[in-house]
Amino acid sequence: MEYHKFEESTLRGFTESVFKKMGCSEEHAVLAADVLLKADLRGIDSHGVARLTGYVRLWEKGRINAKPNIKIVHETPSTATIDGDAGLGLVVAPFAMKVAIEKSKNVGSGWVAIKNSNHFGIAGYHALMAVEQDMIGFAVTNASPLVTPTFSKERMLGTNPICYAFPTGKYPPFITDMATSTAANGKLEIAQRKGTEVPTGWIQDKDGNSTTNSHGLKEGGALLPLGSDREHGSHKGFGLSATVDILSAVLSGASYGPWAPPFVAFMDPLPNQPGEGLGHFLGAMRVDGFRPVEEFKLHMDNWIERFKNATPISPEQKVIIPGEPELEAEIERKVTGIPLIDAVVRDLNEVADKFGIDRL
Amino acid sequence: MEYHKFEESTLRGFTESVFKKMGCSEEHAVLAADVLLKADLRGIDSHGVARLTGYVRLWEKGRINAKPNIKIVHETPSTATIDGDAGLGLVVAPFAMKVAIEKSKNVGSGWVAIKNSNHFGIAGYHALMAVEQDMIGFAVTNASPLVTPTFSKERMLGTNPICYAFPTGKYPPFITDMATSTAANGKLEIAQRKGTEVPTGWIQDKDGNSTTNSHGLKEGGALLPLGSDREHGSHKGFGLSATVDILSAVLSGASYGPWAPPFVAFMDPLPNQPGEGLGHFLGAMRVDGFRPVEEFKLHMDNWIERFKNATPISPEQKVIIPGEPELEAEIERKVTGIPLIDAVVRDLNEVADKFGIDRL
Repeated sequence: MEYHKFEESTLRGFTESVFKKMGCSEEHAVLAADVLLKADLRGIDSHGVARLTGYVRLWEKGRINAKPNIKIVHETPSTATIDGDAGLGLVVAPFAMKVAIEKSKNVGSGWVAIKNSNHFGIAGYHALMAVEQDMIGFAVTNASPLVTPTFSKERMLGTNPICYAFPTGKYPPFITDMATSTAANGKLEIAQRKGTEVPTGWIQDKDGNSTTNSHGLKEGGALLPLGSDREHGSHKGFGLSATVDILSAVLSGASYGPWAPPFVAFMDPLPNQPGEGLGHFLGAMRVDGFRPVEEFKLHMDNWIERFKNATPISPEQKVIIPGEPELEAEIERKVTGIPLIDAVVRDLNEVADKFGIDRL
Repeated sequence: MEYHKFEESTLRGFTESVFKKMGCSEEHAVLAADVLLKADLRGIDSHGVARLTGYVRLWEKGRINAKPNIKIVHETPSTATIDGDAGLGLVVAPFAMKVAIEKSKNVGSGWVAIKNSNHFGIAGYHALMAVEQDMIGFAVTNASPLVTPTFSKERMLGTNPICYAFPTGKYPPFITDMATSTAANGKLEIAQRKGTEVPTGWIQDKDGNSTTNSHGLKEGGALLPLGSDREHGSHKGFGLSATVDILSAVLSGASYGPWAPPFVAFMDPLPNQPGEGLGHFLGAMRVDGFRPVEEFKLHMDNWIERFKNATPISPEQKVIIPGEPELEAEIERKVTGIPLIDAVVRDLNEVADKFGIDRL
């Protein structure tokens, strides 16, 4: 695959310009670009500026509102429901996390369900907002239906990520940010470009048979829940994904399960939507609601050190602490730049031409 | 395997008698028995009265305090930390969940970290306490180290379950209660008794090689995190298990990772414990902190109906909604009785003889 490297500031400026051309306010454009750039910096390329054209196409279809009136529609001292007014999830979710953090400051924790939103980028961005305040961050979202429950051949759930982030002392924040499917769609796309097969257990074909054909999903198949099959616990992956769907959408009043609106603009949402838009669920808990922050951080560091030193199977590959590779990528890419494959650059330059802004 | 069936009331009376002989108060004995019986009724035999002799042995070693002074040691309006005073997790966790529910009534949600506890039975018992109050229940716990992180061959984590439970309308509560390992130890024990092999991906041997030997764990191997191997997402199972460990133990002040005290009395806890006992983390969120309860329940029922009707691969096996098989077992076993294998009955009768109470 051919790719070019771009400086962070170049991509950031470009992305902000595109969002402004969509009609976003300066503040929203800067924030939305920051969420996408964070994904690229952290090496989660599938959720960075490569998605920008997807948001543009949804906006062109009238499914994204560039000037949303995001508001709290229901609340208690530690909970709230927010209506995203069909705004970019990239700005709706940070708004909601600020509400969660504020509630957490006041009463120890804050939990916010969000309806009528769109794709919110990487869950980790939002969870890390809490970590900066010495809080534990939690972020989940439902997503376009691509995953089948155990025993089914119908796409009923998104890759519905779960993210937990914890403050630490001298080590990078501990952050687990994971799709609840065995593999994410991005990994299939890589195999498709390379023309290789995918491992057994990632997808099944349209009849529900296991397949290693990397085009199996496109051809009517489905991604499999974490665990891959019943014998290896796919009912657990299904249970987790379902939990994310319920917290994000049934609780907030968004559309759930197979009704979750697809991210791709060429597919319309199903008729008879049971709710409004996509849903998220975010939380923040003050560490000092449980024990003193410094004490917690010392023990987090001790936890991380102990796990780094868990006896490896092979001396060349030690245990990886969740969150470390992403921070390492962030440090490196700030210096060396962000690689974009040529197909993505072409896509972005088409948008630039349409909006009359400078090409990348 | 030979087994006998017992009426619920017989096992309940027996279990209460044993806890009272240990020195538990009437109230604690009744509660602890209720937690164990709930597991047996719901078909989770590994966590029911089959564990009773394990608790007795821990008490004999002085590791369980039958008369604990369970108390809140730190709190905010929506959070608390509880010291279980080395009591039975079976009574410490319900105490803590009551605190979470009370906080949830007051400010919308309640989150309680618990240190200095012991095995708390099935997570589902505690989460369902919240559901009875039209709240969402959350329960996790750390446990004896038997699971290895991805890339390691050292036992660093417990099977660390995650449980979420949601109220519903006409259907049974939606409840996902799952170990974060691919398979639980109980499944290995069944294979050992039958003399069969276990599937690839459940365990590895002491050198970190994949094995199908059902005795592999006993012989120095380890259970694998949900996902089984890196290619199938075992880093996600590791991330979830680690999250449970951190919430349960690093946040509360309990012992974490490989230091988590083993359930088996013949193994002493490691020296230089970084905290006190096992830890749990429980939560309750009022549904009406987000949207009206009746509205939520209608949508939960709609969710369940849609998923029950997801196109099955084979018409004989429809999608299973988490929580349904357990409720079906509960209804059946209340009538037909609870099966215990003879080895368990023998074990329980030895305890009966020692305590001078009637045999089963």
